[in-house]
Amino acid sequence: MISVRELAEKIGAEVIGDSQQLLLAPNRIELAQEKEITFLQHSKYLSLLKECNASAILTTSKFVDTSLPFTWLVVEDPYLTFAIVVDIFSPQQRPDFSHHTSYFIEKSAELAEYVQVGAGVYIGNYSKIGYSSILYPQVYIGDKVQIGENVILYPGVKILNDTIIGNNCVIHAGAVIGSDGFGFAPRPDGSYQKIPQKGNVVIEDNVEIGANTCIDRAVLGSTIIKRGVKLDNLIQIGHNVQIGTNTVIAAQTGIAGSCQIGEYNQIGGQVGIAPHLITAKGVKINAQSGLSKSVINDGATMTGSPAMLYMDFNRSQVLRKQIEKDFLQKKDKE
Amino acid sequence: MISVRELAEKIGAEVIGDSQQLLLAPNRIELAQEKEITFLQHSKYLSLLKECNASAILTTSKFVDTSLPFTWLVVEDPYLTFAIVVDIFSPQQRPDFSHHTSYFIEKSAELAEYVQVGAGVYIGNYSKIGYSSILYPQVYIGDKVQIGENVILYPGVKILNDTIIGNNCVIHAGAVIGSDGFGFAPRPDGSYQKIPQKGNVVIEDNVEIGANTCIDRAVLGSTIIKRGVKLDNLIQIGHNVQIGTNTVIAAQTGIAGSCQIGEYNQIGGQVGIAPHLITAKGVKINAQSGLSKSVINDGATMTGSPAMLYMDFNRSQVLRKQIEKDFLQKKDKE
Amino acid sequence: MISVRELAEKIGAEVIGDSQQLLLAPNRIELAQEKEITFLQHSKYLSLLKECNASAILTTSKFVDTSLPFTWLVVEDPYLTFAIVVDIFSPQQRPDFSHHTSYFIEKSAELAEYVQVGAGVYIGNYSKIGYSSILYPQVYIGDKVQIGENVILYPGVKILNDTIIGNNCVIHAGAVIGSDGFGFAPRPDGSYQKIPQKGNVVIEDNVEIGANTCIDRAVLGSTIIKRGVKLDNLIQIGHNVQIGTNTVIAAQTGIAGSCQIGEYNQIGGQVGIAPHLITAKGVKINAQSGLSKSVINDGATMTGSPAMLYMDFNRSQVLRKQIEKDFLQKKDKE
Repeated sequence: MISVRELAEKIGAEVIGDSQQLLLAPNRIELAQEKEITFLQHSKYLSLLKECNASAILTTSKFVDTSLPFTWLVVEDPYLTFAIVVDIFSPQQRPDFSHHTSYFIEKSAELAEYVQVGAGVYIGNYSKIGYSSILYPQVYIGDKVQIGENVILYPGVKILNDTIIGNNCVIHAGAVIGSDGFGFAPRPDGSYQKIPQKGNVVIEDNVEIGANTCIDRAVLGSTIIKRGVKLDNLIQIGHNVQIGTNTVIAAQTGIAGSCQIGEYNQIGGQVGIAPHLITAKGVKINAQSGLSKSVINDGATMTGSPAMLYMDFNRSQVLRKQIEKDFLQKKDKE
Repeated sequence: MISVRELAEKIGAEVIGDSQQLLLAPNRIELAQEKEITFLQHSKYLSLLKECNASAILTTSKFVDTSLPFTWLVVEDPYLTFAIVVDIFSPQQRPDFSHHTSYFIEKSAELAEYVQVGAGVYIGNYSKIGYSSILYPQVYIGDKVQIGENVILYPGVKILNDTIIGNNCVIHAGAVIGSDGFGFAPRPDGSYQKIPQKGNVVIEDNVEIGANTCIDRAVLGSTIIKRGVKLDNLIQIGHNVQIGTNTVIAAQTGIAGSCQIGEYNQIGGQVGIAPHLITAKGVKINAQSGLSKSVINDGATMTGSPAMLYMDFNRSQVLRKQIEKDFLQKKDKE
Repeated sequence: MISVRELAEKIGAEVIGDSQQLLLAPNRIELAQEKEITFLQHSKYLSLLKECNASAILTTSKFVDTSLPFTWLVVEDPYLTFAIVVDIFSPQQRPDFSHHTSYFIEKSAELAEYVQVGAGVYIGNYSKIGYSSILYPQVYIGDKVQIGENVILYPGVKILNDTIIGNNCVIHAGAVIGSDGFGFAPRPDGSYQKIPQKGNVVIEDNVEIGANTCIDRAVLGSTIIKRGVKLDNLIQIGHNVQIGTNTVIAAQTGIAGSCQIGEYNQIGGQVGIAPHLITAKGVKINAQSGLSKSVINDGATMTGSPAMLYMDFNRSQVLRKQIEKDFLQKKDKE
C-alpha cells in the first residue's frame, strides 16, 4: 500500500483532498473499488464518476469536482501518468530462468552480464546479447546477430542472421525478424528464380514489435525500423522498408517492399501499402485503407481502398447519398 | 470394417437397403469408392449421386431414391452426423511423448494425471495442467497459468503468464495467448510511454483457436473468450475484448481492443472491428467487412467497409447501377 | 574478387568495356560503389545511372551508353540474371548444427545422408527426411511426414502429421503446415460439433512458403500446393484448397476452403477468396481484392471488393466521377 501523498510525489501530481488516503492498486474507472485509484482523461467518461467506487482519481484540473467523495490527483496528462502509476504498483518482474540450463549457445557467441536465457534457446555463431537482456524459452537467435541492452524477447521469437537490434526493445512471442523478402524473377518458362535476400534488418532503440509479426530482411542493404516505432501483432513488413521514428502501426497491417514510412505516422489495422511508396511526417492512415500512392503532405489523413484524403472520402460519401436521393426523387415524379 | 447396421445404431440412423453392407471408411461424395460411406446434405450436390461409387449414403429422408444402388442411412442432419461417423472410423489418437523426457518444468508447477508433455516444452512457476491434457513439443506455458482437462496444445503454442484455459479446448500450432495488448500513451516529445498490460486472458470450455492466432491480455481485468467459441487461423484479438458464447470467426479477422462481441455471432474472414464496439446476439458479419459502429439488433447481417446492413448494401449496389445506366442513356441522347 | 570476364562467362553476358575490371560485390543501383556491379532493367531507373558509382552495369543492349564510365554486361533479362550474380558473389551457406545434438528423433524416423538437424528439433514416428535437407533449431515434424531432398525448414516451422513435401522447398520461420481446417457443424443447441480433419497437405517441388503462413490439412483427401508456387508471409490457405503450378501470392492473403486456384496466377497482398471458387490460368488479382465469384477466363485481372474485372472497375470509377461532376454542375445552375 502506498499513500496518495507518496504517489503524488513520485508522479508530480497536485493533491486535492485526503493525502493520507492509502491506495492498493490502480483500476479501470468502471471496475475500481475502495482504496483503488483510477483516471479520467476525457469528458465522455465523466458520467461514470457518479457510480465510481475508487478512492482516488487521477485527472486534469478541469474535471476536479470537490463535491464528489474522492481524493483528486491533478496532472497535465492523466492517461500518460496512469501508465506510470500502474508500473509503480506492479513493476515488471524479471523472470528467473536459472533452474533450466538446457539452452544451446554456439561458442563464438557473447553474452553480456545479467542476460537471462530460457530453456530451449538457441544462439548462433558470433552473435552478441547486450547487458540485462532477457531471452524467454525457445527463442532462436541466428548467426552474427547483435542485440542491445535491456531487450526482451518473448517465447519463440526468431531473430535470423545478421539482424541488429538496439536497446530497450520488446519483441513479442512468435515474431520473426529477418526472414527472406519475397523476391522472385520470372524465368522464360513461367517458373521463378529466387532473388537471394542478402541484406538484413536493423531495429533501433525503444522499438516494440507484436506477436507473430514478420519483418523481412532486405535484398541488399537493410530493412530499418527506426527509434521508438511500435508495431502491433501479425504485421507484415516487406524487404527494404524503412519505418520512421515514433510511428505506430496497428495489427494485421502489411507494408510492401521498399516503402519509406515517415516519422510520427499513425497507421490503423489491416491497412495495406503498395510497394515503393513514401509517406510524409505525421501521416494518419485509417484502418483497412489501401494506399496506392505516396502521401507527400505532412499530417495528411488517408482513408479508403484505394486511399484518398479523409476529407475527400467524406465529401464523396455525402455526394453519393445526395445523388441517390436526387435520383429516387426524380423516379418518383416520373 | 463395420456393418451399416452397427454404424446406424451408433448414430441413430434409419437404414433403407442392405444393412449387412460392410463399410471401410467415410469419404467425400466425389471421391468415395466401394465400401465407403458419404453424405448428402444439400440438393445442389444431388447430381453427384449418379456417378458416386460409395456403397452407402448418409442423408435426410427427402433425398432417398431407392432406384439408386446405395444403402441409405437416414438422419435429420447428415453433415452433423457425418462428423461423428468420421470419428467412429478413425478416432483421434493420443500421441505418446514418453520417449523424450527433455522438457523443462519448474518445481512449483502441477501436472494432473495422464498429462502428455512433449520434448522441449517449458512450464513456468505455479502453473497447473489438468487431467489428460496434451502439450505437444515446444509448447511454452508461462507462470501462474491454469489449464483445464482434455486440452490439446499443438506444437509451439505459447501461453503467457496468468492465462486461464477451461476444459476441452484445442489450440493450434503457433498461437500466442496472453501477449501484451497494444497500448501506448503519447509523451509531449512525440515518443510513446508503454501502458503496462497487467490483466490476463480467460478462455472458457470447448473453445478452439487456430494456428498463429494472437489473443492479447487485458490492460487490467481480462480478455474473455466464452464457452464454445471457434477461432480460425491468424486472427487478432485485442486487449479487453470479450467474445460471446458459440461465436465463430474465420481467418485473418482482427478485433480491436475492448470490443464486446455477442453470442452466436458468425464473423467472416479478414473482417476488421474498430475498438470499443458491441455486437448483439446472432449477428453475421460478411468477409472483409469493416465494422465502425456497434450492431444493436439481434441477427443483423453486416457487410462492406464501412459496414452497413447487408440489405442496405445490396440496395445501394442496385441503385448505383441504375444511376450509371440512367446517366449513360442521357449522355447517348445528348 | 572476380573479374568482369570471369563473371560474364558464368552468366553468358556480352562485355562492352574493360573486361579486366575486378568486382567485389553486387549492389542496388542507388547504393553501389566502386568495384561493385548493379543492374538496370527498366527505363524509369535510367536517370539513376548518372550518379551511380558502380564499376559495372548488367543490362540489356538498349540501355548501353558507352559515353558513361561503366563496364557493361549485356544480357536478355538483367533482373533474372542479377539473381544469379548475387548467388555467385555470396552463395547460400549451409549452417552447421553439429555442435548441439540435443534434438528429439523418434526411433522409427528415417534421415537420409547429409541432413542437418538443429537443436530442439522434434521428429515424429515414421517420418522421413530426404537427402541434404536442413532443419533449423526448434523445427517440429509430426508423425508419418515425408520431406524431400534439399528442403530448408527455418526455425520454428511446424509440419504436422501426414504432410508430404517435395524437393527443393523452402519454408520460412514459424510457418504451420497441416493444422486442422476450420470445420464445425452446428448442433441444435447452437453449439458446434468439430468436423474431424483427416486429410493432409501435399507440397510439390520448388515451393517457397513465407514466415508464419498457415496451410490447413484437408477434411478428407489433400490440400495441394503445386510445383513452383511461392507464398509470402502470414498467408492463410484453407482446407482442401489446391494452388496451381507457379502461382505467386503476396503477404496476408487468405484463401478459403476448397478453392482451386489456377496455374501461373499472380495474387496480391491482403486478398480474400471465398470458399469453393475456381480461377483460370494466368489470372491476376490485385491487392486487397475480395473474390466472391470464380474467374473462368484465362489471364483476367480482377480488382475491388467484391472483385470485378480491372477494366470494369476502372470504367466504374471514371463513370462515378462523371456522375458527380454532372450532378454538381446541375446543382450550380439551379
